Amino acid sequence: MAAQRLLVDVHSHVYLPRYASFLRSRTSAPRIFSRPNPNPLANGKSEERLLILDNEPSVGRPIGPQYWDREEKLKFMDRHGIDISIISSANPWLDFLPASTAHELARELNTDLETYCSTAPSLASAPSLKRLYGFGLLPLVTFASMTSLLDTIDQILTLPHLRGIIMGTKGVGRGLDDPALEPVWHVLAQSGLVVFLHPHYGVDGQAWGEQENGHVLPLALGFPFETTTAITRMILSGVFDRHPTLHVLLAHSGGTLPLLSSRLASCIAHDPIVASRLQHDARHYLGKLYFDAVAYGAEELGFVSDAIGRAGAFTNPNPNPSEGEGVVGHTANSRGVGLEVRRIVGSARMLFGTDHPFFPPLEETERWMSVVENLDAIDGVDGWGQEEKDAVRGGNALKLFGLS
Amino acid sequence: MAAQRLLVDVHSHVYLPRYASFLRSRTSAPRIFSRPNPNPLANGKSEERLLILDNEPSVGRPIGPQYWDREEKLKFMDRHGIDISIISSANPWLDFLPASTAHELARELNTDLETYCSTAPSLASAPSLKRLYGFGLLPLVTFASMTSLLDTIDQILTLPHLRGIIMGTKGVGRGLDDPALEPVWHVLAQSGLVVFLHPHYGVDGQAWGEQENGHVLPLALGFPFETTTAITRMILSGVFDRHPTLHVLLAHSGGTLPLLSSRLASCIAHDPIVASRLQHDARHYLGKLYFDAVAYGAEELGFVSDAIGRAGAFTNPNPNPSEGEGVVGHTANSRGVGLEVRRIVGSARMLFGTDHPFFPPLEETERWMSVVENLDAIDGVDGWGQEEKDAVRGGNALKLFGLS
Repeated sequence: MAAQRLLVDVHSHVYLPRYASFLRSRTSAPRIFSRPNPNPLANGKSEERLLILDNEPSVGRPIGPQYWDREEKLKFMDRHGIDISIISSANPWLDFLPASTAHELARELNTDLETYCSTAPSLASAPSLKRLYGFGLLPLVTFASMTSLLDTIDQILTLPHLRGIIMGTKGVGRGLDDPALEPVWHVLAQSGLVVFLHPHYGVDGQAWGEQENGHVLPLALGFPFETTTAITRMILSGVFDRHPTLHVLLAHSGGTLPLLSSRLASCIAHDPIVASRLQHDARHYLGKLYFDAVAYGAEELGFVSDAIGRAGAFTNPNPNPSEGEGVVGHTANSRGVGLEVRRIVGSARMLFGTDHPFFPPLEETERWMSVVENLDAIDGVDGWGQEEKDAVRGGNALKLFGLS
Repeated sequence: MAAQRLLVDVHSHVYLPRYASFLRSRTSAPRIFSRPNPNPLANGKSEERLLILDNEPSVGRPIGPQYWDREEKLKFMDRHGIDISIISSANPWLDFLPASTAHELARELNTDLETYCSTAPSLASAPSLKRLYGFGLLPLVTFASMTSLLDTIDQILTLPHLRGIIMGTKGVGRGLDDPALEPVWHVLAQSGLVVFLHPHYGVDGQAWGEQENGHVLPLALGFPFETTTAITRMILSGVFDRHPTLHVLLAHSGGTLPLLSSRLASCIAHDPIVASRLQHDARHYLGKLYFDAVAYGAEELGFVSDAIGRAGAFTNPNPNPSEGEGVVGHTANSRGVGLEVRRIVGSARMLFGTDHPFFPPLEETERWMSVVENLDAIDGVDGWGQEEKDAVRGGNALKLFGLS
C-alpha cells in the first residue's frame, strides 16, 4: 500500500560521464566546451557550456555536475521528495554518429546506465526497489543495420534495471514512419520495454524569426511540435494498428497531440488519400499512449486526461472496414461518457516528470520552480481525487515499468 | 433578444472573382490551373485545381464555384442555418506579390468585398443587418511601405461592411514581431478593427517526411504550429503590452497556444534573456485574444475556454517591475477561480466558424461534416449553459464586430 504513494520521476536526464567526455572531445555541435565565465563573481574562472545544435541561441547553456554526477541526481531527488527516477540519456543521444560508433557506444552507455542504477541506494521504504532505473539507447542513426538495432534491444533486455528505451524522432534517418523500422516496433511491442519518445530538433529555426528570445521558442514550441509530428506520423503509418501493445510514452504530455487530435481526425476524414487507411478514428490512438505530466499547468493536465479518457468512444468496433469505407469521426460519440469519468480514465496513462537537470532556476532556490509547477499542476487538476493524483505521481509508473 | 440567437460564422473564406482570375493568369504557385478530370464519371471534362504552395501534396485540390460565387456561399449558409458570415480572403492573400501590385490589388479587393457584402440580402429576422460582412486585406508584403499599409487601413475604415482585416504571419517579410510594424498595431488598436490571424505556410515541409499522407500533416499540424509561432512571437515582442486594446482573433482556436501556454510561461521564467521582459505571465495574454471555435471537439473547446478564463489569475497587478525583477508564473494562482467560472469567462472570447469552402465532404451530403462537428462541439462543452453556447454561436461575434 505504501508503495502506491511513491513519487516517481519518469522524465529525468543524464549525460553519462562516458558521453560527456565524448562531447568534450568534439569540435562541432553537439559538444561541451569551456570558456571564461562572464559572471564577475566567477573571478575569471572558466565555465563549461553545452552546445546541442549549431547556431543555438545564447551559445548553448551552462552545464555542471548535475548533468553527469549521480550524487547530484540523488541530492536533487531528496530535495524534492522524489523516491525513484527513471533516468534517460539527454538529447541528442547518438543521432550524430556513424552507425558503427553508435552501436558500440550504445552498448557501452547501456552498460554504464545499468551500473548507474544497480549500484544506487535502495528505497528505504521498499528495499526491493532501487531509487534509479533507466531507459537504454538504440543506435538509431542513418545507415544503422537492423542487426545492430535488434542486438541492442537484446542487450537491454539482459540489463534488469533498464525498463525501456529513449528515442528521438529521426529513426534511421527517415523518421518513425519509416517502413524499415517495422522489425523494431515488432520486437519492442513484444518485449514490454517502454519507448520514451523525446524531441531534439524542434522545427526549422527560420520559424523563430530574427528577434532575440533566448531558448524560449525552440523549447516552448519547437520541442512539442516535433513530438507531435513524430507521433502523428507513426499513427498515420499504422504502427499502432499493427502493434497495439507497443508502449510509447510521450515527452511533455504529448506535445500538442491532445489539442490537435480532433482536428487531426477531421483532416484524415476529409482527405481522400488517408480517409480509409486507419482502423480507428485518430482520437482512439491517444488511449494507447502514455503521457508524462510535464505540462506546467493543471488545466493542461486535466485536458490531456480528457483527451485520453475519451479515446474509447472513438474505437471502431469493426476495425477492418472494406475498401473505401473510411472511419468517420463524427459517428463516434464522446458524449457517451461523462466528463468526470473521462478525466479519471485518462489519468491512468499520465506520469509525473521533472525534465531535470534542464530548467534550473535562474536564482538559487531550495526547490526548483519547474518541479514545484509540475507537482502543483497534478494537485490542482479538477476532477482528480487523491487516488488519481497518487497514481499520476507514482503509481502509474510503478505499474508501467514493472516496479513492485 | 432574437439577435442573440443568431448563428454567425467568423471563419469563412472567399477567392473573390478578381483574385481567382489573377490566380488563373499565373504559371507558378499560387495558381489555379485546369487539367483533365481523372474521375471516370467526369467523361473527360477538365477540372480546375488550386495549387497554393509549390510541391503541395496531391497537386493541390479541386476548386469550384463555392470558392468565388456569392450565391454558393449563401446557399451553404442557408443549408447550415448560418445567419451571418464574416468573409475573409483565403490564403495566400497578397503575400507573393511585389509591393506596388499588392497595394493596388488590396484596395481593389477591399472594394470588391465591400460590394460583395453591401449588395447581399439583409437578414430577414433583423433587417438592419446584412448577411455578409468582411475582413479586408492589407498589402503586407516584403518591402511594403508604411504609407501603403496605413493608407489601406484608412480605406478599410471607409468601407462600412468591412469590420476587420485578415493577416498572414509574414508581416513585411520578417514576421509579426518586426518592430517595423509598430505603427500598424498602433492604428489597428485605435481603429477597433479585428485582426484575424490566419496561417498559410505551416512549417518546413521536411518535417512531414517521405510517406504519402495527402494534406493531413500540413493542415492538421502545420497550420496550428504556424499560428502558434506567430502569436507567441507577438507576445514575446511586447505587442500586447504596448497595445492592450488590439483585437486579435486566432484561427483554429489559437492553434496550440492554449495547450502550450503554461510551458511557454515556464520557459520564459527560466530564460535569462526574456525573464524580465514582459509585463505579465504569458498566460495573461490569452485573456486579451479571441479564438474561433474551429477545433472539431467539445473537450478542445472546453479547454481553450479554461485557458482564456484563467488568464486573469496571471495578470500582474504591478506590471512595471524594476529591472531584473521578472514576472514569476507560479506566484499567480489559477486555483483562485473555480473551474465552472473559468470555463464560463473564457467562452466570451470564442466564436463559431466553419472554414468554408475548405474541408468539403468527400461525398455529397446535405450538411457538411466539418460544420456539424464544430456545431456539435459547441453544444457538447461541459460547463457551458445555453447562454454561453448561444454567445459562442453568434452573440460574441455580434459584439466583437459591432453588429447590432
